[in-house]
Amino acid sequence: MIKVNEALLKKVARKEDMDAGEIKKRMLKGHIVIPKNRKHKVKSPCAIGRGLTTKVNANIGLSAESSNISCEMKKMEAAVRAGADTLMDLSTGLGLVKLRKKILSECPVPVGTVPVYELACMKNKDFLSLKEDDFVAVVQKQASEGVDFFTIHSGITLDIMEIVKRDERIMNIVSRGGALLGSWMVENGRENPFFSRFDDILDICKEHEITLSLGDSLRPGASADATDRLQISELLMLGDLQKRAMCRGVQVIIEGPGHVPLDQIETNVRLQKSICGGAPFYVLGPLVTDVAPGYDHISGAIGGAIAAWHGADFLCYVTPAEHLRLPNADDVKQGVIASRIAAHAADVVKGIPSAVKRNNDMSQARARRDWKTQFSLSLDPETSGKMRKEAEPEKTDVCTMCSEYCSIKVTEDTLKKAKRKR
Amino acid sequence: MIKVNEALLKKVARKEDMDAGEIKKRMLKGHIVIPKNRKHKVKSPCAIGRGLTTKVNANIGLSAESSNISCEMKKMEAAVRAGADTLMDLSTGLGLVKLRKKILSECPVPVGTVPVYELACMKNKDFLSLKEDDFVAVVQKQASEGVDFFTIHSGITLDIMEIVKRDERIMNIVSRGGALLGSWMVENGRENPFFSRFDDILDICKEHEITLSLGDSLRPGASADATDRLQISELLMLGDLQKRAMCRGVQVIIEGPGHVPLDQIETNVRLQKSICGGAPFYVLGPLVTDVAPGYDHISGAIGGAIAAWHGADFLCYVTPAEHLRLPNADDVKQGVIASRIAAHAADVVKGIPSAVKRNNDMSQARARRDWKTQFSLSLDPETSGKMRKEAEPEKTDVCTMCSEYCSIKVTEDTLKKAKRKR
Repeated sequence: MIKVNEALLKKVARKEDMDAGEIKKRMLKGHIVIPKNRKHKVKSPCAIGRGLTTKVNANIGLSAESSNISCEMKKMEAAVRAGADTLMDLSTGLGLVKLRKKILSECPVPVGTVPVYELACMKNKDFLSLKEDDFVAVVQKQASEGVDFFTIHSGITLDIMEIVKRDERIMNIVSRGGALLGSWMVENGRENPFFSRFDDILDICKEHEITLSLGDSLRPGASADATDRLQISELLMLGDLQKRAMCRGVQVIIEGPGHVPLDQIETNVRLQKSICGGAPFYVLGPLVTDVAPGYDHISGAIGGAIAAWHGADFLCYVTPAEHLRLPNADDVKQGVIASRIAAHAADVVKGIPSAVKRNNDMSQARARRDWKTQFSLSLDPETSGKMRKEAEPEKTDVCTMCSEYCSIKVTEDTLKKAKRKR
Repeated sequence: MIKVNEALLKKVARKEDMDAGEIKKRMLKGHIVIPKNRKHKVKSPCAIGRGLTTKVNANIGLSAESSNISCEMKKMEAAVRAGADTLMDLSTGLGLVKLRKKILSECPVPVGTVPVYELACMKNKDFLSLKEDDFVAVVQKQASEGVDFFTIHSGITLDIMEIVKRDERIMNIVSRGGALLGSWMVENGRENPFFSRFDDILDICKEHEITLSLGDSLRPGASADATDRLQISELLMLGDLQKRAMCRGVQVIIEGPGHVPLDQIETNVRLQKSICGGAPFYVLGPLVTDVAPGYDHISGAIGGAIAAWHGADFLCYVTPAEHLRLPNADDVKQGVIASRIAAHAADVVKGIPSAVKRNNDMSQARARRDWKTQFSLSLDPETSGKMRKEAEPEKTDVCTMCSEYCSIKVTEDTLKKAKRKR
């Protein structure tokens, strides 16, 4: 059974303005997780799952082309400032151990990693000649360092690799972790160690109270590949693994697509919930077009809003730099804000009281032309305040768009006049 | 009956890669319009409506606070360069007649206006003391200048103003045109001239082959006000007016919301199509949150994608400056691109062949790491090219995000190896 940390539960329940008992009940069913390593101090923990506010994750990390630790720390700060609920360190560059330690000590929100990346970056060892034990060992190592949640690609098996080999897609494997495991499996002719040694991985997660995020190696990377045999085959496998993890008392999240056309998003969410026992769904976007590089945060916000509305619980942000280059700190900010717009839009229709109230408070402030309150209620007070300041009108109760023809002001005056006429 | 300009029809049919006869059939039913004034030369005309690619409109225009004609011309250029299908001049500032003439002579796409704005800005006349005839005269004047489509707020009547006076909403009237007409009606105790003189307006439109865009004075300006009695009362009236216009042989578009929560968008589109005889639906966003000032182009792209997927034909862009100030040229560009992302995402699920092909060509170029083709297929080649150039990796067939761990490259190598092993 899932072990519930009662102090932590109370803290997140307060944050959600929800009954702790209800959250606990859902945790025991596997519908809600609280990602936190037993050892790790998390200043701002969060719960993710059914009936809660939609959460947003930001990815940062070194790459082989760019290994500047202070740059990545600035991205971490930008992500947290913009309102990310969790942070994933996806480093695949030199210095990744040092960066991870720094993040684990300074990041106020839960921290996730993809342990296989560390294996791929080992200087003294060739990835393809690693042994099964190495895969378990790196998970053990990062677990004892305090990582709160792990993406582990246990769902890509030898059977599924047979479908991969048919090469039926436009974009075959677009998951870095999945591609690495696939290459190891083909080279060694052996089963995915994260699958064959899944019980060992569960033991480590259980011991450190780590949440397992089951990676989707076969998420579609092109709209044309969405909801295909490969994706659904892996999803069925993830559903199986979710049940095994629950039996072992390990909290589980399921990762999802990817590139998905508008009209397949609801189906993807319903399928995941049905196959994976209602486990939290962590979607990567999804992106609703393939043709918006430079603006994929917008494409991802469209998909994320629809996904969260239909039940996805956790949105992995997408930055404007997606498909083009490593994001910089401003890209990180833009990505987080876009995902938070999607999350908020979904929370309103999910009936989350705080989201509805925030919308209404904003609209009331707008009706009063109370600019200060509008800025404070906006998702990015700094930007909204700055934009207005760039063109502040002479009359402070309107804006430069409509000025004296402000519809709200004109109608306010009209209604006053109508009352006097009665 | 609608008069169809055959040469124009052929031109837009080629653009849509569709049978001209089929478009004509739908035009006669009122399901498709081609906005073009008989007199006006439009370099890039377009058709809007059922089964066609989703179109995007950009608004520009002088305001009382900012009356710089060359600034507005730069915005026009930015809008057209970014791919706007039509342009509306919403000027309410000094010099609006001069600007409109300039736009009508230089703008390559169809041009729309809101004639009541010109009445509100007359220096020598007080708006509230205007006569009915003045409302008809300004429409006549702009018609003979060559405007292609008019937003006319005929749907806000004395009966509906009685509901407005109950003041039941958070944001009562958020349409500038609607607020102006409401103020005139209350001041004069008379019916809306655009309603009482609707037949005269139709005669002018018929004579100049102008498309009528029936304005929604009572669109919701807050999520909480969406799909309410006021909005739907006006929609019923617009449906009535649409039938009258069709009888007179005038092409009609219906304008729509506004601020609408995610789960009410489909209903709004279905309702409009049902009430208004399948006329093209021109939505203003819709915005799915109230709390994203500074980023309302994203909020509008989410709503626009869902609306267009369910049948909205024409998306009015929203810029990042919405609710804050008059947009600048960069805001205009951002707004158009965001709406085009929404339009493209919808066109893919509407099964528009060119949209599906563009997605697939892009994904194939991505699989090949063919950057040049990716840029050329992207909605904003300049930005996507620039972003990659900011961080070009040593190995040109990957990007700085994943570098040597590029999933596509790794999997390509894996599959080659697997073939050799067979």
